[in-house]
Amino acid sequence: MGSLETERKTTGWAARDPSGFLSPYTYSLRNTGPEDVFIKVICSGICHTDIHQAKNDLGMSNYPMVPGHEVIGEVVEVGTDVTKFAAGEIVGVGLLVGCCRNCRPCNTDREQYCAKKIYSYNDVYTDGNPTQGGFAGSMVVDQKFVVKIPDGMAPEQVAPLLCAGITVYSPLNHFGLTKSGLRGGVLGLGGVGHMGVKIAKAMGHHVTVISSSDKKKVEALEHLGADEYLVSSDAEGMQKAAESLDYIIDTVPVSHPLEPYLSLLGLDGKLILTGVINTPLQFLTPMVMFGRKEITGSFIGSMKETEELLAFCKEKDLRSMIEVVKMDCINTAMERVEKNDVRYRDLPGDASHLKRFLLSPMLSAQVSSFDTCNTSTSFSFRQNHNRFLVNPVVLLPSKQRRVHLRRVAKVPIVAGETLMKHLDAFTKKIGRNVVLELFDTKEDPKTKAPKKSRGAVLKDWSKKAKVKAEWVH
Amino acid sequence: MGSLETERKTTGWAARDPSGFLSPYTYSLRNTGPEDVFIKVICSGICHTDIHQAKNDLGMSNYPMVPGHEVIGEVVEVGTDVTKFAAGEIVGVGLLVGCCRNCRPCNTDREQYCAKKIYSYNDVYTDGNPTQGGFAGSMVVDQKFVVKIPDGMAPEQVAPLLCAGITVYSPLNHFGLTKSGLRGGVLGLGGVGHMGVKIAKAMGHHVTVISSSDKKKVEALEHLGADEYLVSSDAEGMQKAAESLDYIIDTVPVSHPLEPYLSLLGLDGKLILTGVINTPLQFLTPMVMFGRKEITGSFIGSMKETEELLAFCKEKDLRSMIEVVKMDCINTAMERVEKNDVRYRDLPGDASHLKRFLLSPMLSAQVSSFDTCNTSTSFSFRQNHNRFLVNPVVLLPSKQRRVHLRRVAKVPIVAGETLMKHLDAFTKKIGRNVVLELFDTKEDPKTKAPKKSRGAVLKDWSKKAKVKAEWVH
Repeated sequence: MGSLETERKTTGWAARDPSGFLSPYTYSLRNTGPEDVFIKVICSGICHTDIHQAKNDLGMSNYPMVPGHEVIGEVVEVGTDVTKFAAGEIVGVGLLVGCCRNCRPCNTDREQYCAKKIYSYNDVYTDGNPTQGGFAGSMVVDQKFVVKIPDGMAPEQVAPLLCAGITVYSPLNHFGLTKSGLRGGVLGLGGVGHMGVKIAKAMGHHVTVISSSDKKKVEALEHLGADEYLVSSDAEGMQKAAESLDYIIDTVPVSHPLEPYLSLLGLDGKLILTGVINTPLQFLTPMVMFGRKEITGSFIGSMKETEELLAFCKEKDLRSMIEVVKMDCINTAMERVEKNDVRYRDLPGDASHLKRFLLSPMLSAQVSSFDTCNTSTSFSFRQNHNRFLVNPVVLLPSKQRRVHLRRVAKVPIVAGETLMKHLDAFTKKIGRNVVLELFDTKEDPKTKAPKKSRGAVLKDWSKKAKVKAEWVH
Repeated sequence: MGSLETERKTTGWAARDPSGFLSPYTYSLRNTGPEDVFIKVICSGICHTDIHQAKNDLGMSNYPMVPGHEVIGEVVEVGTDVTKFAAGEIVGVGLLVGCCRNCRPCNTDREQYCAKKIYSYNDVYTDGNPTQGGFAGSMVVDQKFVVKIPDGMAPEQVAPLLCAGITVYSPLNHFGLTKSGLRGGVLGLGGVGHMGVKIAKAMGHHVTVISSSDKKKVEALEHLGADEYLVSSDAEGMQKAAESLDYIIDTVPVSHPLEPYLSLLGLDGKLILTGVINTPLQFLTPMVMFGRKEITGSFIGSMKETEELLAFCKEKDLRSMIEVVKMDCINTAMERVEKNDVRYRDLPGDASHLKRFLLSPMLSAQVSSFDTCNTSTSFSFRQNHNRFLVNPVVLLPSKQRRVHLRRVAKVPIVAGETLMKHLDAFTKKIGRNVVLELFDTKEDPKTKAPKKSRGAVLKDWSKKAKVKAEWVH
């Protein structure tokens, strides 16, 4: 590969404070040590954890912080002791990049439970430097925590397997729930829930999606292939399904009662919690005793299990449902993930249905500029996020700004009115959601790409920005 | 055996209402069917469940109700299809006497979880008659729910294995926790807790008893053979023991926090709840996720496991710790169990240390009379229990009544004073608990046994009763 000295710096999108707002940040990467793999990032998934960390929701965030822990990249260089990987190969990196290698968990292929595990970002590496994640151009990672992506798997399809996927696969594997014919439940249909349905179906399970409303029924049954859909407030349906399930993967990340779901479990059934919830959950002991049910939880999975999962997904041709957005739309994408506004969309002729965000930093040379970002009408336009891109749109001071409803209509923004008012009316009229495109008109004359950073755009918004909206089908 | 028609009736001690007060009750037993075993009861353990049922704590009690579900008896007669048992053999009966034999639990030797299981009392048998338990002279039980007591085991030693013992053994067996060298915890040192320590020790585990105070430390370490004793309020001790246990058997029957105990569990550790608690327990999801810990519960065990347990206890010469009392002291004994006033006592020269009550109905021909009953000074003398034997003692109207402190002193009861005052003073003086003996002086001239029923004694108390107290060592 020749000297890589010139590549020892990389640029990522970093949170700087608990606002969680990400902006370009350039930092040094360590030289490739004997056990290291130097990786050029291709894409990286967004997960709720990234938002929690960026916003210091767990009170343990250090800044600047480059999130991203579902990372797919291409090997650029390997250390002298690395035999498993070679330059040019496609590899993945998940939530961890280090462990002690000497404790009971480490010695039994359960290193994800090592007390000295090192997270791929917002942690301190063995060299004393902060770790930075996959919302970046490159990473240097110890080979133990790098996994080869099997040939023939699309990189962006694999990324969500490295956190959401393994979070489901590991407990099913550990608790002996992989054999065909089992009856599984998936509670909550976010990123992990979707992977839960897909993986359980691929294992030959009968899968029931349980949700608080019927909003996701079509999505669950028709697009994800679940066998049944149960609304938790439907007393009759819940009663009919009582004691019918061998396990439930509970992905709900907020406080919720457990009794309704324990009731759905049969003898020796397992309720597997995957969401970090900061308020206590409750249950009655007879609910677990009479049926020897288990309430348990699981944290990602081991590298060994990750390899198994990838082989399994390749064998079953299991694909995740993603929505690919450009890296420079990361802030809007994060907001949408936070608000569960990442919805399945059926792209004609494309079997890789959209569900999870995948941020492509393939244009990482341009991370200091940006062009367009998407948001939807369900966005809250919070006034206190004064650095957020959408705010100036809401507060547009003059009719110079327009909502350009591409393919549909043009909506002039009247001075003193809010964009939301127009969008709401329009959304109701067409009966669909719309997506806003916001961009700076100050383009680079050569590349036609906007030249200013997001912050700069916000500052200059009143002079230079245009607003577009297009409806999504 | 000849005709057994004359034995088709038996007398037990039945609760008649939610006071839980037991009194003699004569009822019919079914004839010995082809699959039935007709058993003469030798003894029967008392368990908290008996109290809950007798007092309708679970709101599901039917009266008259004869409790008792840790029953040891001698086979009197067997049905035509019974080949496993023969007259004269010593057998046991536990909490169940029936199941559907046709469901998934029944077909996989987990019949204790059959939805149509029939409890040995306070339930309805297949013939439509109420089931009645082991606080009685005889029982007729389907052979499936009868277990042979291995030769050489003392009947009264075995009784507590049939509920308390199997409650511990079954989950250890089911969850793969029987192998030597494991580190177990036992939370709460009542009947189940004691069996937990003994069984876990016999399996070769390192056993830590966890308690809310150090009151049971000597008992746990010196008499039961536990390896460590941890007071849950000792922050330093709890911290030192963090993540050190493979499992905890949680026998606490009232609401309590789970976090302190989840913290003691290591990776893949299991918190096994055995107490029916009517208020919710709480936990935080990270407590189970980061360490893949399991909160689970278990309900007695299967007949197959009961057989295994008895063989195991015989092999290990494992003995329960019991206190044997006569059947006609059942009400006082139940009160003492309810108040956890059944304490280990070291009887010199007797290795069968006392812990659980065993009620011996060997004198069941005399259940309509009674002689003496024990109570201790910690007894509450509740005034609203106007049928309870002790009340009239407290209210003794004249100095005719005496507290006879056998082997120690005589304490005259002064008119208008309470017995408790004297006993309290005396207890303080000698630094030990005392036990009261209360009896009616109206004796049968031939047998010297009191002739009147308890109710009658209460009514006639002011004329006829004597009070004795003796200290227990």
